[in-house]
Amino acid sequence: MENFHRMVSLSLLLLPSLGLAQPPVPTLVAPPPYSDQTLGELRQLHGAALRSDYALRQIAHLANHIGPRLTGSPQAQRAVEYVAGELHALGLEVSLEKIMVPHWVRGEETAALVGFPGMAENTTQRIVLTALGGSVATPAEGLTAEVVVARDFEELESLGREKVAGRIVLFNHRFDERMAAQGAGSQAYGQAVNYRGRGPSAAARLGAVAALVCSAGPGGNRLPHTGQTFYAKDAPQIPAGAVTTEDCALLAALAAEGTVRMRLLLTPQTLPDAVSYNVIGDLKGALHPEQIVIVSGHLDSWDLGTGALDDAAGVALAMEVAQLVKTSKLQPARTLRVIAWMSEENGQSGGKPYAEEHAAELPNHVAAIESDLGCDHPLGLNVAAKGVWGPLLLPISRVLDASGAGLINFTEHVGSDVDPLTKAGVPSFSPIQDARRYFEFHHTAADTFDKVRPAELAENAAVLTVTAYALANLQHPVPR
Amino acid sequence: MENFHRMVSLSLLLLPSLGLAQPPVPTLVAPPPYSDQTLGELRQLHGAALRSDYALRQIAHLANHIGPRLTGSPQAQRAVEYVAGELHALGLEVSLEKIMVPHWVRGEETAALVGFPGMAENTTQRIVLTALGGSVATPAEGLTAEVVVARDFEELESLGREKVAGRIVLFNHRFDERMAAQGAGSQAYGQAVNYRGRGPSAAARLGAVAALVCSAGPGGNRLPHTGQTFYAKDAPQIPAGAVTTEDCALLAALAAEGTVRMRLLLTPQTLPDAVSYNVIGDLKGALHPEQIVIVSGHLDSWDLGTGALDDAAGVALAMEVAQLVKTSKLQPARTLRVIAWMSEENGQSGGKPYAEEHAAELPNHVAAIESDLGCDHPLGLNVAAKGVWGPLLLPISRVLDASGAGLINFTEHVGSDVDPLTKAGVPSFSPIQDARRYFEFHHTAADTFDKVRPAELAENAAVLTVTAYALANLQHPVPR
Repeated sequence: MENFHRMVSLSLLLLPSLGLAQPPVPTLVAPPPYSDQTLGELRQLHGAALRSDYALRQIAHLANHIGPRLTGSPQAQRAVEYVAGELHALGLEVSLEKIMVPHWVRGEETAALVGFPGMAENTTQRIVLTALGGSVATPAEGLTAEVVVARDFEELESLGREKVAGRIVLFNHRFDERMAAQGAGSQAYGQAVNYRGRGPSAAARLGAVAALVCSAGPGGNRLPHTGQTFYAKDAPQIPAGAVTTEDCALLAALAAEGTVRMRLLLTPQTLPDAVSYNVIGDLKGALHPEQIVIVSGHLDSWDLGTGALDDAAGVALAMEVAQLVKTSKLQPARTLRVIAWMSEENGQSGGKPYAEEHAAELPNHVAAIESDLGCDHPLGLNVAAKGVWGPLLLPISRVLDASGAGLINFTEHVGSDVDPLTKAGVPSFSPIQDARRYFEFHHTAADTFDKVRPAELAENAAVLTVTAYALANLQHPVPR
Repeated sequence: MENFHRMVSLSLLLLPSLGLAQPPVPTLVAPPPYSDQTLGELRQLHGAALRSDYALRQIAHLANHIGPRLTGSPQAQRAVEYVAGELHALGLEVSLEKIMVPHWVRGEETAALVGFPGMAENTTQRIVLTALGGSVATPAEGLTAEVVVARDFEELESLGREKVAGRIVLFNHRFDERMAAQGAGSQAYGQAVNYRGRGPSAAARLGAVAALVCSAGPGGNRLPHTGQTFYAKDAPQIPAGAVTTEDCALLAALAAEGTVRMRLLLTPQTLPDAVSYNVIGDLKGALHPEQIVIVSGHLDSWDLGTGALDDAAGVALAMEVAQLVKTSKLQPARTLRVIAWMSEENGQSGGKPYAEEHAAELPNHVAAIESDLGCDHPLGLNVAAKGVWGPLLLPISRVLDASGAGLINFTEHVGSDVDPLTKAGVPSFSPIQDARRYFEFHHTAADTFDKVRPAELAENAAVLTVTAYALANLQHPVPR
């Protein structure tokens, strides 16, 4: 999960779910949206999802055997081939849709304080950081400069060029851990990412030689959180990194006492854009094969951990939908399309070229489902669609309520990969995941397979499978 | 805190403390151990301790301004000078007692899987690890070998030389997180340290080229935990490291599928032993200056973090005792001796040369107090002394009960630095710290200043100060 502004609000939803399972439903006399047979099949799929370990095994392969899957990397290519092969083995019609992706490669990343008030002679103090995605490099021998701390953009402006030029700017905006602990991690993330995204260019406009942000995640384990930065066109590109929350606190404390000087070495490289692919697997519909229900996650990941939560989980869940339908010997009325998106993490989502390339077919896209917020317990469904969908989702909600996932939350965006489809009017869905733990690991070395809780992953599989299969079997078309 | 076997059992003590504050006390008719004036001073010191931020500021200086304090390092020397200066400024008689310490310097430490079943071509998978203290280096270009996993010493033996020789042994013993969460972290640590200490030589005896252990701490944040290893005299010295819990799980999972090969580079150096010092500051007693009550912590630390919890906290608390007594304008009857021990972490405690050098004076050592298990909420006092001490500690327990620290736990060892004194018959004491959080940070990069909870640190200051001042004012000598 990368693009903060597209995330949904969870803050009001982390209430006991069962009592709130059904949203207010307009009473209307309409034909039942699903046949009795479909309703039976939904219950069957729900139970099968809770018993399956297929998605878990897919995450294990992607995270443990393939590893980090940064766009342009051999691992990302291997992941494309692996998922394509697995979908083919499930009996899906598989295609690879070519896209161009950024190819940024992390290098060395070290930093140390070389001067501060009261520092012991002949010592340095290590600072733990990581380069932000897309960062340019420091000179090969590193750079050494004074650190100037700004708590926000306003304070940076008030410092002005005189106090910023030639220095390393540290944005001392801390991730709001309490907000995240209450379930609003996406909002806390959004606030922090504001600095990660725009901070380096803001600092560069005032002459800074490098910019650092506080990691966009909870502190406590001295892990830096990487993530994309975005250089503005009107500013020099300067090296950009994220220090850990601990190191941010240290820097802020020392800088409050006097002059702090840091040596910084970052040696990432931006190589020419690379060829890569969205992986698409179709389980053809029996009645309306031209009509599409997408289930999806993104295949690329950051490179510090192995991207188990972000987002091997989403890809594995989408694959699980097809696997469960196939092994249950069911065929949906419409086509179920599994998509493993490439290049979500660096701001050039594979969802965009897909929407462009398939623009003419989008009226036939009945729904697009995405999972990209980990795989802890799902409380229900986020829905970006018109209110007419309320009653159509009620039977789905009733089935999912059996695993505590009966909430329906209407919102505007459900995820960054399907967002171009959402904007084009395709009804869009994502599980409402409990993300209270997610941001601890997100974009860090600790995003690894062991963080997946198998039972909760299976609950997510139930949400995706029941939703996708139901929508693929709606008895009547839904007006856009 | 390093030497696991000297730690006390907390498992039975993490009960609501107030109700259990007093141990069974033999009824006896004896003169009151403390004068009414002393009892009043104890309550005064207790309150002053809870209000003071002196210890907090000492930790900030040691951790943030001086940084990691590995024995033999310039930072360790700087810490000696700093503490000596502060104790002098408090008006204590300060002396430095010279000791020789190991001088081991960490180097590069990287590892990667270069082969395992199903591995993508042209990729590697990073393994996060750290060298164990005292480890020898790999060849400068690293070494590459198959990984063989043993869950314990028995399985290693059963594998035998044929399956171990030429390979990297991984001891897949995981730290027992549930035990630690229940308050018995020291026991869980002891189990894990068994492999950290003896594992490398056990593997080397069967021809292994390197040995890895699972980090001796909870997993979840992909942080490696360093710590000392001990080479046996009858085995070749092979490079030794600790992988994170996550990497241990990955290695074990992949090795269960087939052959796993790892490239390992560790470049630590063992330099000649260095001169260092125990720092000693005496606040002379008014009536019996020759009689000594020691309060202490250890000044050296591991080098990954800044040793805020392990054990800047202990040193700062010992300094706080003197500071509180001084600023309260009190003078104890006996001498309060603040000691900042050097070289606890690498198995050659500064406590040993102290006990040897002061052997003739040990009958005059009334008590030795040490704090080396972090500085979270103290529940009371560990006591390594004869049962006759029970009634003598009861008034102390009553004062400390006001801050929830009224438990008295008789045990055999209270800490590794004072252990030589304990063994020589000196009654020994340590706070019963809530260590449920301690082992998450212990010996990792995350042992940093922000982990200190000021209010709980102050509670520890109250325990040490009240105990030390009381023992320094006992009205009658206590038979050994």
